[in-house]
Amino acid sequence: PDLTPGQFNLVYNMFSFTIATMFAAFVYFVLAQKNLAPKYRVSMMVSALVVLIAGYHYFRIFGSWDAAYALEGGQYVFQDDQPFNDAYRYVDWLLTVPLLVVELVLVLGLPKGESGSLMARLGFAAALMIILGYPGEVSGDASLMGERGLWGFISTIPFVYILYVLFTELSSTIQRQSGRVAKLLSNARLLLLATWGFYPIAYMIPMFSAGYPTETPGAVVALQVGYTICDVLAKAGYGVLIYAIAKAKSEEEG
Amino acid sequence: PDLTPGQFNLVYNMFSFTIATMFAAFVYFVLAQKNLAPKYRVSMMVSALVVLIAGYHYFRIFGSWDAAYALEGGQYVFQDDQPFNDAYRYVDWLLTVPLLVVELVLVLGLPKGESGSLMARLGFAAALMIILGYPGEVSGDASLMGERGLWGFISTIPFVYILYVLFTELSSTIQRQSGRVAKLLSNARLLLLATWGFYPIAYMIPMFSAGYPTETPGAVVALQVGYTICDVLAKAGYGVLIYAIAKAKSEEEG
Ligand SMILES: CC1=C(/C=C/C(C)=C/C=C/C(C)=C/C=O)C(C)(C)CCC1
Ligand SMILES: CC1=C(/C=C/C(C)=C/C=C/C(C)=C/C=O)C(C)(C)CCC1
Repeated sequence: PDLTPGQFNLVYNMFSFTIATMFAAFVYFVLAQKNLAPKYRVSMMVSALVVLIAGYHYFRIFGSWDAAYALEGGQYVFQDDQPFNDAYRYVDWLLTVPLLVVELVLVLGLPKGESGSLMARLGFAAALMIILGYPGEVSGDASLMGERGLWGFISTIPFVYILYVLFTELSSTIQRQSGRVAKLLSNARLLLLATWGFYPIAYMIPMFSAGYPTETPGAVVALQVGYTICDVLAKAGYGVLIYAIAKAKSEEEG
Repeated sequence: PDLTPGQFNLVYNMFSFTIATMFAAFVYFVLAQKNLAPKYRVSMMVSALVVLIAGYHYFRIFGSWDAAYALEGGQYVFQDDQPFNDAYRYVDWLLTVPLLVVELVLVLGLPKGESGSLMARLGFAAALMIILGYPGEVSGDASLMGERGLWGFISTIPFVYILYVLFTELSSTIQRQSGRVAKLLSNARLLLLATWGFYPIAYMIPMFSAGYPTETPGAVVALQVGYTICDVLAKAGYGVLIYAIAKAKSEEEG
């Protein structure tokens, strides 16, 4: 749809903000590693990779957004020959979402056998969730009972599995940690729930906007803004919390 | 040929995915070096160079693909004045394939005299394989009995030589390693076989698609997707396995 300058620029500037945030977070996570015990450094390295990959994709998303609209007569008019590429987000998530769960498991510092199986199961479920959500995202039929609703529903199954593992299996592991670390870990788990939980909500916006996407500028903008806020919190914000956990554990274990 | 948006975008997004993966792998291999004994660091450095070179080439390939097609009336129309440049791949391989065999030999940790000769022979054969495959790739005559088939056949001779060396000469060397390392090394050799083996298969796709490339959009897409998956596994995936080997050897040798 065509956008007002305010709508177009809101998204444009949020993308730029996110590029800056991701690359700055990358530098921070790389440099902060040396404050940690060697055992926990790999977790920060994974964090660094996540925000680097995200920075790259926001750079592409920004370019695609910029090319998809042109200012004509005071309105940002959608360019049919250069459509906005939704897939960058999903490609990004396909790489980063499994890494985010790996990061959480690594910072737990479990014995090798246990952590390998946890990472494999959670990483696989995370990738499956993203792959199953994609056909709904790009489908022309955005209704609740249509393709968007159907794929969204199927993609929720691995999502629920991930939450189930985090909130049942992992609970005893978290309780085994010291008071301060246990607190931080259960915060990280909550941050994961709080940020990840907004993705399906954002995904649902178009379902309630008849005529999406061609006739609903508001829903197009809300979806981009929603996903972007989630990404900043779920990647950079989450990485800072993982750093705090790794720091606390490094200090405790001397 | 002209492509549907689905075909064009599949290749487009896979190229973008690969750029992100290669550069993230580069950062990982550079930073992970310090976890290894100094003796094995050079092998990871070679891995890092391989994915850096590949990231650069995928950046170019992505740009070339994007410029070679334009969206007109719902179809991606091939632009005669900006053809897709196949040569980027071969230039990339010419640099990276010899480095990949060097990497494998380095992680074996052989005495100096032995490893030098192995690297020289395998690296030379690898370069020869790529050079001989190129005329067939760009030939207009893609048939099995035509130029593509002929050059493909000639290029298979150094390929078979490489496999012969890896699976005969190297076997005794691998058996001399400890149980865990021997297992990892023979996995690396199998991953090499599994990923390298798909390149000639992808190369053959056009041979069975009459009218390639102008009349066969499916074969054009399948070739790009096939080569891209191989490259991710043969460079980044393989590098991770080499890292695991180097880590295991570092720990064993204290
Ligand atoms: C459940 C569900 C979804 C969940 C997506 C999630 C949870 C994405 C998380 C992304 C993260 C954490 C990215 C940043 O790092 C989809 C695919 C929207 C489709 C609708 C159903
Ligand atoms: C045998 C053969 C080929 C083999 C190519 C190979 C084995 C390429 C490997 C490339 C790698 C490993 C790149 C990434 O790092 C060609 C040239 C397709 C031509 C047909 C015959």
